[in-house]
Amino acid sequence: MHQLIVRCSAAVKAGILCFALCVCSVASAADHGPLIIKDQGSFTAGGKVSTTQGTFDPRRPLDPAGQSYHGDHVYAFYQIPVDARKYPIVMWHGAGQFSKSWETTADGREGFQTLFLRRRFAVYLIDQPRRGDAGRSMVEATIKPTPDEQLWFNQFRIGLWPRYFDGVQFDRSAETLNQFFRSMTPNTGPFDMDVLSDAVAALFAKIGPGILFTHSQGGGPGWLTAIKSRNVKAIVAFEPGSSFVFPAGEVPAPIPSAFDTVQGTAVPMSQFIALTKIPILVLYGDNIPDHPVDFPAQDSWRARLEMARKWRDAVNKHGGDVTLVHLPDIGIRGNTHFIFSDLNNVQIADLVSKFLAEKHLDQ
Amino acid sequence: MHQLIVRCSAAVKAGILCFALCVCSVASAADHGPLIIKDQGSFTAGGKVSTTQGTFDPRRPLDPAGQSYHGDHVYAFYQIPVDARKYPIVMWHGAGQFSKSWETTADGREGFQTLFLRRRFAVYLIDQPRRGDAGRSMVEATIKPTPDEQLWFNQFRIGLWPRYFDGVQFDRSAETLNQFFRSMTPNTGPFDMDVLSDAVAALFAKIGPGILFTHSQGGGPGWLTAIKSRNVKAIVAFEPGSSFVFPAGEVPAPIPSAFDTVQGTAVPMSQFIALTKIPILVLYGDNIPDHPVDFPAQDSWRARLEMARKWRDAVNKHGGDVTLVHLPDIGIRGNTHFIFSDLNNVQIADLVSKFLAEKHLDQ
Repeated sequence: MHQLIVRCSAAVKAGILCFALCVCSVASAADHGPLIIKDQGSFTAGGKVSTTQGTFDPRRPLDPAGQSYHGDHVYAFYQIPVDARKYPIVMWHGAGQFSKSWETTADGREGFQTLFLRRRFAVYLIDQPRRGDAGRSMVEATIKPTPDEQLWFNQFRIGLWPRYFDGVQFDRSAETLNQFFRSMTPNTGPFDMDVLSDAVAALFAKIGPGILFTHSQGGGPGWLTAIKSRNVKAIVAFEPGSSFVFPAGEVPAPIPSAFDTVQGTAVPMSQFIALTKIPILVLYGDNIPDHPVDFPAQDSWRARLEMARKWRDAVNKHGGDVTLVHLPDIGIRGNTHFIFSDLNNVQIADLVSKFLAEKHLDQ
Repeated sequence: MHQLIVRCSAAVKAGILCFALCVCSVASAADHGPLIIKDQGSFTAGGKVSTTQGTFDPRRPLDPAGQSYHGDHVYAFYQIPVDARKYPIVMWHGAGQFSKSWETTADGREGFQTLFLRRRFAVYLIDQPRRGDAGRSMVEATIKPTPDEQLWFNQFRIGLWPRYFDGVQFDRSAETLNQFFRSMTPNTGPFDMDVLSDAVAALFAKIGPGILFTHSQGGGPGWLTAIKSRNVKAIVAFEPGSSFVFPAGEVPAPIPSAFDTVQGTAVPMSQFIALTKIPILVLYGDNIPDHPVDFPAQDSWRARLEMARKWRDAVNKHGGDVTLVHLPDIGIRGNTHFIFSDLNNVQIADLVSKFLAEKHLDQ
């Protein structure tokens, strides 16, 4: 009956007198009915400004003298459903990706943007500074069209190119792979975790308390954002990459892999402690080996998962509340690095919803 | 009463039995009620693929041998309202801009994306190839953070920096200017009208017949898209820039200005004729001088408006249906180069709606 209440509320707010008798199933309305959006739009947050010395001459517009340049902001597109829950969700993409990670899946199904809107969360999709629609970087960059997609096919654990993993939760049509590869966009400036976390902390200052979802490379600056902003009330990190922060003096030994060496980063205890104050859920998918293998793509995730476990233990030892779930351990198999857009993403959304409910984050 | 029908249709489609008695004003529901979205999402269209010679070695993932690269596609985010009109609207940004042009205005009001959703059009916002979220370019580029915003303040006819034009339809708060400057994002590859129009023609092949809105630099590749795709059923061009196409042998003399020289481009009559088959509305705003001045920003628009009039006459001479409105001529004053996001953008939306109705494009 919940959707009925939403609809009547919407109608009443629109100044319509509405007397309605409704019989419906929550599931069908929530999964298939129209989205009822109270407000949507976009804005930027944070960033820096530089100005060239001199005086601007309107008759010499191509001379930078006296001209300004705004950059290094984050860009956000948001939607707020009618009767939204208390905390919005900010969704932060990973390496080489942008807001599309959370939009329509490569095979054309609804992504987490729309799934969580249906579950009555306000949703903010971001492009981090120096990526996609937040492309104005304060630092110069050269972008080369270097063929690299077989690397990503393997690194994102869809399979071992050109073979798909048995039972992988990824549609095998050619058009799905085409859409998947085209959902990448390059950095327009150097990757800088401080620039990124400053901007997303500024976004949280604008929108108030909320929940942060991060993917992969977004994990590292996500931890820093929670250190910089008390408005981050929880984090759900999908396969966070190599940038885990530990208290100074407690950084574990580096973990070598066939791809690279995963190293923890030291931060002062006064900063680290922020991560012990909020519930955190960390999820990893399938096809991560439990002992070293000589394929760099798979082995990199073995080392990352191992470091993530050490990080969970470090946060929890200091009073934190980190839950790490390696999905095969609970019988969920076939997930790639893109857990939230895989074929079973409704099941994953249910898992996340359950966590948010348990932590009273879905009021 | 129209909004009532939309809402009941939504409820019925969601499997809800709904008996409702409604009293409402169309204006209040359309302008202020919730948005009722049947479907939303994103995809890419068109583009190219390159592959490096050789064989991919999964143990050497950073070697491009045998690896592929997808680029030069267009990216689109779409929303389809319940009970949508027949033709969707594709909205195409201008130079240095991206989808944000049509989203929330710099001062925080609803842009054309949401205004036309409220008017029951499906809306597709694009980032053109090599811009924003469609950043994977087939050609290398270097991006320099060159201060240039006073150029844009003048070029976009907000005023003569730092002075705003008297009566300009642009909010004067510092935060509005901050948001406005941050709504720019750089090219990630060279600007190439054929690459752009190929991709947007591929988008129209995917979505079927629709209406194309273009802004500024998007105008030129917009004409080419209509030449390449019969699915472009009408164009509304907001201040198209310098790239007007004429039949070979009918290109007018170049028009010099204090900024640059505006030149028409010749295309075969067999291509040009496509532009005579669809209704086209061209709008220009205020503060465009009617005789040469020595400020490059203002003078560039004098030359562009003059070329646009010659183009209108050329298309109409060959049986076309181009309406060019210089807004001050009909008493609408103060518009900048961003007519659709100016303070009077609801009035502009009304003007566009009236055109679409007159041409039977809003069925």
